Amino acid sequence: MAGTKIVLEGDGVGLVETRYFTFSDFELEEGGRIDLVTIAYETYGTLNEKKNNAILILHALSGDAHVAGINSGQNNPGWWDPLIGSGRAFDTNKYFIICSNVLGGCRGSTGPATVNAKTGRPYALDFPVITINDMVDAQKRLVDSFGVDKLLAVVGGSMGGMQVLSWLTRYPDKIRSAIPIATAARHSPQQIAFGEVGRQAIMADPQWKYGNYYDGFYPAKGLAVARMIGHITYMSDVSMADKFGRQRKDKAQPHKFSADFEVEGYLRYRGENFIKRFDANSYLYITKAMDHFDASQGKALQDVLCGIKARVMLIAFKSDWLYPVYQSKEILKACKLSGVDATYCEIESTYGHDAFLLEVKEETHLIGHFLKKVFYEYEVTGHYEI
Amino acid sequence: MAGTKIVLEGDGVGLVETRYFTFSDFELEEGGRIDLVTIAYETYGTLNEKKNNAILILHALSGDAHVAGINSGQNNPGWWDPLIGSGRAFDTNKYFIICSNVLGGCRGSTGPATVNAKTGRPYALDFPVITINDMVDAQKRLVDSFGVDKLLAVVGGSMGGMQVLSWLTRYPDKIRSAIPIATAARHSPQQIAFGEVGRQAIMADPQWKYGNYYDGFYPAKGLAVARMIGHITYMSDVSMADKFGRQRKDKAQPHKFSADFEVEGYLRYRGENFIKRFDANSYLYITKAMDHFDASQGKALQDVLCGIKARVMLIAFKSDWLYPVYQSKEILKACKLSGVDATYCEIESTYGHDAFLLEVKEETHLIGHFLKKVFYEYEVTGHYEI
Repeated sequence: MAGTKIVLEGDGVGLVETRYFTFSDFELEEGGRIDLVTIAYETYGTLNEKKNNAILILHALSGDAHVAGINSGQNNPGWWDPLIGSGRAFDTNKYFIICSNVLGGCRGSTGPATVNAKTGRPYALDFPVITINDMVDAQKRLVDSFGVDKLLAVVGGSMGGMQVLSWLTRYPDKIRSAIPIATAARHSPQQIAFGEVGRQAIMADPQWKYGNYYDGFYPAKGLAVARMIGHITYMSDVSMADKFGRQRKDKAQPHKFSADFEVEGYLRYRGENFIKRFDANSYLYITKAMDHFDASQGKALQDVLCGIKARVMLIAFKSDWLYPVYQSKEILKACKLSGVDATYCEIESTYGHDAFLLEVKEETHLIGHFLKKVFYEYEVTGHYEI
Repeated sequence: MAGTKIVLEGDGVGLVETRYFTFSDFELEEGGRIDLVTIAYETYGTLNEKKNNAILILHALSGDAHVAGINSGQNNPGWWDPLIGSGRAFDTNKYFIICSNVLGGCRGSTGPATVNAKTGRPYALDFPVITINDMVDAQKRLVDSFGVDKLLAVVGGSMGGMQVLSWLTRYPDKIRSAIPIATAARHSPQQIAFGEVGRQAIMADPQWKYGNYYDGFYPAKGLAVARMIGHITYMSDVSMADKFGRQRKDKAQPHKFSADFEVEGYLRYRGENFIKRFDANSYLYITKAMDHFDASQGKALQDVLCGIKARVMLIAFKSDWLYPVYQSKEILKACKLSGVDATYCEIESTYGHDAFLLEVKEETHLIGHFLKKVFYEYEVTGHYEI
C-alpha cells in the first residue's frame, strides 16, 4: 500500500503474489471426492528450459503458501523467508521454488471453509476426510501443470516432512531428493494425544456446533486453547526458561486467574493471534490427517523405501521433544537398511520443535550445500543415478 | 454396602473413615482470610504415647485425604494404598499416618465450592487466593490438634512434594524427615504453561461464568480438556507407546472427529471421569498455587535450607518430563551446599510423572528403610540430631 514502509533484505525475493490453481474431480484416498479443488501457491525464481530446477517446499500444520517475500500492501515476510532468495539456501538465481497451501487448509486452498458449489454453503463437516497423501496428490497436479516431470527436491518440516515422506515413498521417480525435517514416519501415541486434546478443545467450544459455525460466532476460544497447547509443544523447557523465566507481568489484573507470568501472557497472545488467521475445522481435518499418516503403509519402512533412487537428507533438532530425534533416526535406519542414499544431521538447538523455523544459519549451510550437490550431479551426468 | 464384594489385601488398612477438622479465623499468606476452615482427613495406625510416630502424607493436584483402605460402602482403594498398612512401607503397626485434603480442594476441605456462611452461597471466585504455604499451615493446625510436636516424616509427590518443601523450609523443627518425590522447588515456565492452558480450557467454557456455575450447568467440557492435557504430561512417550501403540478403536463412529485411536478414547475417558469428582474452580486455585510456589522464597535455595536438621530423601523418576530429574537434583545440590543430610534416588521407570503413584515396589523399599532408620535413631538416641 502506498506509504507503507517495507524493509526488504537485499537478497530476499521482494514482492510476491499468491496464485491459484484449479482442477476438478479429485478422488481421495479414503474414498471421498471433491468436484472442484483450488490450491493456493506462490513461486519464486524461474523454471529453466530443462525444467530440472524445481523445488517444492511443504508447510507445517499452520503454515501456508507464503513461504518467502512480502505480499503487496502487507508487511508479512514468508514463514521461511531467510532461506529463500538470491544467494540463499534456496537460491532463486538457480532454482524455481514452489510452495502451496495444503488441501484442507484455510489459506486459499480448498478446505472445510470453502463453499460447496452443490449446496451454496461451506462444506464444514461435509468436507471429506483427507490424508497427507491427498495433500501430496493435489501438489502433484500443481507440479504437473508446470510441465515438471521430476522435482529437484521436496523439502519440509513437521507436517511438511510427512508430505516429503509421502512424495518419497509414493512418487520416488518424480523427485531427485528429499529433505524431511523434524518429522516422523508416523505419529506416536503421545503425538496423537496432543492432536486429540487440541481437537477436544475446539469441539468443547459450544460455538463449534459440529462444524456449522460459518454463519455465526466462531469457536475462537476453543481454537485458541488448541493453539496454546501446540505452542508449548513447539518450544522446549530450556527455550521457555530462556525466553520467560518466572518473569511476572505487571499489568493490572481484571480477575484472579488473569495472566501473572510472562509465559501465560505469551500463550494467550499466540492463541488470540491464531484465531484471526485459521479455521477451526481445518485444524481438525489437518491434525487428523497427521495422526493417521503412516509412511510405511502398514509395512516395515525399509520395505517401502527399497529401490528408491532419490537422495535423502534428514534434519532433526536435539531439544525437539514433539518430534524427538529418535523418530528421524528411525527413518535414517530404514533408508540405510534399504540402500537409500541418506544422511542425517542433528542440530544442537535449544529451540525445541520451532527450531526448524528458527535455526536458519545451520539450515542454510546444510540445505544449500545439499541442493548444490544434487543439482550439480544432474547437470554433469544428465541424469541422477547413484 | 451389604452384598458388595470388596476384596481387601491381607495387610492393607481395611475399612477407613474420612473425618473433618474445623478451625476458625485463618489468615492467608496473600492477605486474605477464611472465617471457618474445614479440613477432611484420614488416619491409619495408632499415635504412640511419645507421639513421635506420626507421618503426614501430602497429596498431588487431584488427590484427596483417602490415601489408603476402603471407605464404607465403596470399592475405592486409596491413591497410595499399596504403600500403607501392616508390614508395608508406611507400617501401620509402627506409625500413625495422617493424610488431609488440601485447603482450596473439593474433596471435603474448604474450597471455592464451599458455602460462604456470610452470603449463603458458594465462595466461587470470592474465595481468597491460597498458596502452598497456606495448605501447609492448615495441615499444621490439624497436626497440632493431635498434640504432635514433631512429625516423624512429611512425604508427598508432585504438588505433595511442594508441600513437603514448604514444611521443610518453614517448619524445620516440626519434622524429623522429609521425602519430596517427583517435585520441584518452583515451577519452570513450561510447567506454568501447562497449568495455564488447563486454566484457559476451563475459563473458555461458557458454563464457567467467572466461577459462578454452582446453581446451574458445570464447565464440564473445559475441565475435561484440562484433565486430558494433564494426563499427557503425567505419562511418558514410552509408557504411552507401551500402553496404546497405534491401536485403533473399532467402535462405530458418530462423526469424523470421534476417537479412532485407543489413546484418544483413554484421554476422553479420563477427562469424563474427572469431572464427576473435581471442582473446576478448585482446579484453578490449586494450579495457580502450584505455579506461584517458590520454596526458596526469592533467595538461593541453599540459604533457606541452611541449619535445617531434618533428614531429606529425594526421589525422582528418569522418564518424568513434567517434573524432570534435574529439578530434584537442584534441591539435592542446595541441601548439600547448606549441609542438610540429603540422599537422592533416581528410579529407572518408564511411567513418566505417574511413576510416583505406580512404582510401588521401589518406593516401598526406599521409603520403608528410610523411615525405619529415622525412627530407630530417635528411639535409640531420644532425639534426632545428626
